[in-house]
Amino acid sequence: MQDQTLHSLLKEMTLDEKVAQLMQLATPFFEGSNEQGEITGPMAEMGVTKDTVRNCGSVLGASGAKEVRAIQEAHLKSNRLGIPLLIMADIVHGFKTIFPVPLAIGCSWDLKLAERSAEIAAYEASVSGVHVTFAPMVDLVRDPRWGRVMESTGEDPYLNSEFARAFVRGFQGKDLTSDTNRVAACVKHFAAYGAAEGGRDYNTVDMSERQLREMYLPAYKAALDEGCEMVMTAFNTVEGIPASGNKRLMRELLRTEWGFDGILISDWGAVKELIPHGVAADEREAAAKAFAAGVDIEMMTVCYVNHLKELIVNNEVSEELLDEAVLRILALKKKLGLFENPHRGTDEHGEHEVIMSEPHRAVAKKLAAKSCVLLKNNNVLPLQSGKKVALIGPFAQSGDILGPWSWKGSREVAVQLYDGLKGRMTSDKLSVAKGCGVETGTHEELQEALDIAAHADVLVLALGEKSDMSGEAGSRSDIRLPEVQRELIAAIRRIGKPIVTVLFNGRPLDLRDVAEQSDAIIEAWFPGTEGGHAVADLLLGDVNPSGKLTMSFPHSVGQVPVYYNCFNTGRPQGAPDAQVRYVSQYLDVPNEALYPFGFGLSYTTFHFGEPVLSNPVLKAGESIKISVLVTNTGERQGEETVQLYVRDMAGDVVRPLKELKAFEKAVLAPGETKKIIFSIKEDQLRYYHSDLTFTSDPGTFTVFVGPDSVNVKEATFELVK
Amino acid sequence: MQDQTLHSLLKEMTLDEKVAQLMQLATPFFEGSNEQGEITGPMAEMGVTKDTVRNCGSVLGASGAKEVRAIQEAHLKSNRLGIPLLIMADIVHGFKTIFPVPLAIGCSWDLKLAERSAEIAAYEASVSGVHVTFAPMVDLVRDPRWGRVMESTGEDPYLNSEFARAFVRGFQGKDLTSDTNRVAACVKHFAAYGAAEGGRDYNTVDMSERQLREMYLPAYKAALDEGCEMVMTAFNTVEGIPASGNKRLMRELLRTEWGFDGILISDWGAVKELIPHGVAADEREAAAKAFAAGVDIEMMTVCYVNHLKELIVNNEVSEELLDEAVLRILALKKKLGLFENPHRGTDEHGEHEVIMSEPHRAVAKKLAAKSCVLLKNNNVLPLQSGKKVALIGPFAQSGDILGPWSWKGSREVAVQLYDGLKGRMTSDKLSVAKGCGVETGTHEELQEALDIAAHADVLVLALGEKSDMSGEAGSRSDIRLPEVQRELIAAIRRIGKPIVTVLFNGRPLDLRDVAEQSDAIIEAWFPGTEGGHAVADLLLGDVNPSGKLTMSFPHSVGQVPVYYNCFNTGRPQGAPDAQVRYVSQYLDVPNEALYPFGFGLSYTTFHFGEPVLSNPVLKAGESIKISVLVTNTGERQGEETVQLYVRDMAGDVVRPLKELKAFEKAVLAPGETKKIIFSIKEDQLRYYHSDLTFTSDPGTFTVFVGPDSVNVKEATFELVK
Repeated sequence: MQDQTLHSLLKEMTLDEKVAQLMQLATPFFEGSNEQGEITGPMAEMGVTKDTVRNCGSVLGASGAKEVRAIQEAHLKSNRLGIPLLIMADIVHGFKTIFPVPLAIGCSWDLKLAERSAEIAAYEASVSGVHVTFAPMVDLVRDPRWGRVMESTGEDPYLNSEFARAFVRGFQGKDLTSDTNRVAACVKHFAAYGAAEGGRDYNTVDMSERQLREMYLPAYKAALDEGCEMVMTAFNTVEGIPASGNKRLMRELLRTEWGFDGILISDWGAVKELIPHGVAADEREAAAKAFAAGVDIEMMTVCYVNHLKELIVNNEVSEELLDEAVLRILALKKKLGLFENPHRGTDEHGEHEVIMSEPHRAVAKKLAAKSCVLLKNNNVLPLQSGKKVALIGPFAQSGDILGPWSWKGSREVAVQLYDGLKGRMTSDKLSVAKGCGVETGTHEELQEALDIAAHADVLVLALGEKSDMSGEAGSRSDIRLPEVQRELIAAIRRIGKPIVTVLFNGRPLDLRDVAEQSDAIIEAWFPGTEGGHAVADLLLGDVNPSGKLTMSFPHSVGQVPVYYNCFNTGRPQGAPDAQVRYVSQYLDVPNEALYPFGFGLSYTTFHFGEPVLSNPVLKAGESIKISVLVTNTGERQGEETVQLYVRDMAGDVVRPLKELKAFEKAVLAPGETKKIIFSIKEDQLRYYHSDLTFTSDPGTFTVFVGPDSVNVKEATFELVK
Repeated sequence: MQDQTLHSLLKEMTLDEKVAQLMQLATPFFEGSNEQGEITGPMAEMGVTKDTVRNCGSVLGASGAKEVRAIQEAHLKSNRLGIPLLIMADIVHGFKTIFPVPLAIGCSWDLKLAERSAEIAAYEASVSGVHVTFAPMVDLVRDPRWGRVMESTGEDPYLNSEFARAFVRGFQGKDLTSDTNRVAACVKHFAAYGAAEGGRDYNTVDMSERQLREMYLPAYKAALDEGCEMVMTAFNTVEGIPASGNKRLMRELLRTEWGFDGILISDWGAVKELIPHGVAADEREAAAKAFAAGVDIEMMTVCYVNHLKELIVNNEVSEELLDEAVLRILALKKKLGLFENPHRGTDEHGEHEVIMSEPHRAVAKKLAAKSCVLLKNNNVLPLQSGKKVALIGPFAQSGDILGPWSWKGSREVAVQLYDGLKGRMTSDKLSVAKGCGVETGTHEELQEALDIAAHADVLVLALGEKSDMSGEAGSRSDIRLPEVQRELIAAIRRIGKPIVTVLFNGRPLDLRDVAEQSDAIIEAWFPGTEGGHAVADLLLGDVNPSGKLTMSFPHSVGQVPVYYNCFNTGRPQGAPDAQVRYVSQYLDVPNEALYPFGFGLSYTTFHFGEPVLSNPVLKAGESIKISVLVTNTGERQGEETVQLYVRDMAGDVVRPLKELKAFEKAVLAPGETKKIIFSIKEDQLRYYHSDLTFTSDPGTFTVFVGPDSVNVKEATFELVK
């Protein structure tokens, strides 16, 4: 189908038909769906008619080859011009084979595995009829109160950008038209949703343009540079204007400055939410503002379908802009090959073979193990064979390890930690007890746990948060483990036996008491379908932990936000001439994270040599090499993530204390040494100056190399321009 | 002395002499001071020479008529051109007669008393030799972790602006030249220091320009509109640039846009701090950047005096700008009459009569009582005469009630709560025990408290924070009372007698447990010299509480920031169609404050009628009247603060849920009704639009009238333009 054909098609469309392409409705509205398109109850109250559904452009949340095929077939029969539906759904970290939550994937620092996980998700989703996924979510996050931090890869713009690219490659592949087992990606949430004030979901976002450009925008841009087809707007305000009605963000930045020509879709209901936000008096004004600002597709509200036509007739909205929006939607349908094959990858037969296949589960297991972060280990891990293990806690035998945004995943088939260990240990060496629930417990549960603990050598506590304690609308003001679990660990501690704590959760937690009471801690996040196998591999030493945090763990919520790439302030703590009192600090907690960005232990140890620079002077257009010798000084093979940070010592504006510029993974046998060589060029040192020009400063730079953002060795060079 | 003369004087000055006018040094550097200008130790390390001191322009922190006179006399002898010194000091909430901390003064909502307090402070300071005070501090504050919230009047730009004006009027009077008992004011900290990230002092500030202009700048501007002579820069960054090196803030906004022609002074050491901030490589660059950005006087570092001359000679800094800065300094000296009378108001005789005089203490007492906020009262207050009272707690007999920034105040003469009560109750009705210290306690102390509690009818607990737990560099991540005091109140509660808690502290606290365990709570802040008398007046019912919070009290630190003038979000909690989960909320605490802005109880009760509008339509250039009937429905005379808020329902950008636009105080006898009439004009509804034009939106506005920001009655009007 040629572009010319799309234009011809557009010319045939009535205004109503055009406007309806801009509407996205959930599955039950459609004939062919299991609900057969009966519009009743709250759906009827929306004011959607059979007519608008007939002309509708896309479907939200449909999946399952049979149902999707039926919907598409019914639609093509009823749609006057035979324009196929786009089927979109939230495939965030796996379709049915659930991978770790993205924050955990981030901790793998493994871009290839991340890409592979997205490829598998796309494969499973596409055979199930899905064309577009609302992923990746690349919002930079600094506030662990926010429930959606689990959807992000963390607090670093560079790392988030790399993961954004990896996920887009995985979802979309190289050619969406020919590769029907891929899906179009939709990067979200544009923009800066991750900075919701107070960590309260949907809340106000406010920051300077420099902060926005420097920290928050790069990952969205990276996704688009990688060819991401769509962008979803955010729920929050940016500079006092809701993102879904924000012309500066969409028309000026995204369209004009970045040249994005794909589809812009609102988040669920976000167009109508311009009313409660307080920038639109009614649905008509909401439609006018969102459309003028640049939203192409309105998700799940009907401001466009009820008002755009009248706005165009009254010349309040330009039909040219409408045509552009419709063309973008038709163009994606064309790129996906839907005009030729409206059922695309949909495959009722393949569905059974592809979904949850062994190779898929193997990747899920591998990625889960790589995503876990060993936060502490006083020589108690890996578990020594022969020792009797008591597995205790609400996550010992829980399938609630898939995490938020795993709607197609099944908790029933998720591998529980107990099951993961059971297959690998004899029954006399492994006992299990719940101890308590996630948020409540009984005396009997506690007693049972104490009883099995009394007969064991090592106590493995499986603690954490229910998945609905994070995710969308899952904001917590208290980021400690729920009280009953803290009581459990305190009670268990009194027995005096070694404690290994395995955590299942969706955000950085205040782990001060857990750390004090545990001999070892594995942060397992929500590890997904293969979680129990992966964590068992780590506990038993079959896999050596290699995960590194990509979001700082604060000491307490009172210290939030804590992030590694912050500013020095004019009165830094610990400076040579620092006073006792008049420095930037809290009276009652450190400034630093309890567990910093980049941090994670291994069962082996690594020694880092001093960084060696190929040249103390860097000239524009040239590069310098920074090399470091890394040695495995322990007894096991292990994987280290060698991290390179840079600080511009005196900038035009203040530069972060450290900025991640590169990293490399090295697998080292015991005693083995590898030379890791990084290259730095002038263009990696550029940033937005006070006049918002993107350039670098001549002068001194410090480079830091290390296994995390704190334990680094440094050297300096001069940038000469 | 004519302007022409200043120019002539300038012409006579050498470059060294000019530059030295821009230096401010502490008292000990100067001959005539008690230290006699011996430059030793850390002072010597600064690189200050006798020569530079001889040419120096101003003194930091000198006071005491005798010493200041000696310093000035010695200086005039040694200074080649006989240019007198400016004597500056931090006179923040009183000189020796200490008033409540500014956050408490804010809670009085009494602009006249606030002005009077500043006038008294100026009087006491001026006879003691001071010419300029580093006050008022008008930084808008939303984060109770920040220790300096006690220096601000709170979270509202309108109220802060009114207090800024009141303080400036009080300090400066109508004519600084003739009124030698006034001092020049220096508004601080420019700009937005109150938004230090994480509430950690000196930390990064980042916000949009709209937020800056709408919320943070108005109070500085109000102070300048009132004629404030000086501005102090802030320690923090603004949009990535330290405020003390921020050209956009100083040259563009303050000088060009606002037309400010007074002196800009850095905060202590803030010029040199451009180095640790990371925008200057060395002191030379720090001098160049701070001066180019607009700082006239460098406080307590010597970048200017060591480098400005060379920078000017090398044409890196313009001598014209130097001349402008020097002229501004000379102009203030002239305005203060120092060329004619270098000793100005300095009065060794008057000092004894003026300072801590009875009239001054009477104002301190009145203002302290008006600053206290009754947060809870289950009919236990005022204390019934005849009841036996046990006064318990670390603040029962403590002089640490002056608060931070009261360096000239004496804790020894501060009226302790016990002393305030003792004079008014017979000894058989009043017992006292410490219970515990502020942060630590002993079993014996607790037992003693339990013993006296056992013999009393009512237990008054005097709890709080040491003054150094707030103030500069006094950031706390945990905003509860220290643990030992929470244990004390819990232990006392078990006795089962009525508990009245009186709090002495410098920030909004997490009072959830205190509120649960107390029958009444008086927030007394740091009430100053007359604190014990004022609180006794309230406890005994001789004064009826009337204070209203000007900064929200959060439920917990995990909820921060909580402020009344926030946005609605697109998914507000409690909307008619709100879902259970997918709204902006925390899973574990409410969104709202525990005690909101504007809140405070009385010993009487007030009934508010419905607000009545003179016209449902407001036209530009006209005004509408909003009237409300307020009735004292209780048994005592009382003072109510009637508050008027407005919400623009659909703006060009999002408007706050409520904005304070006016308030009026009404003293009502029992049964008395008063009609309070407010007037609203179009210009009060203007704000910065998306294009930063300052205008209003036609459309619907809601007005709210009530005794606080939550318990309001509302009406609507239309703005027609």
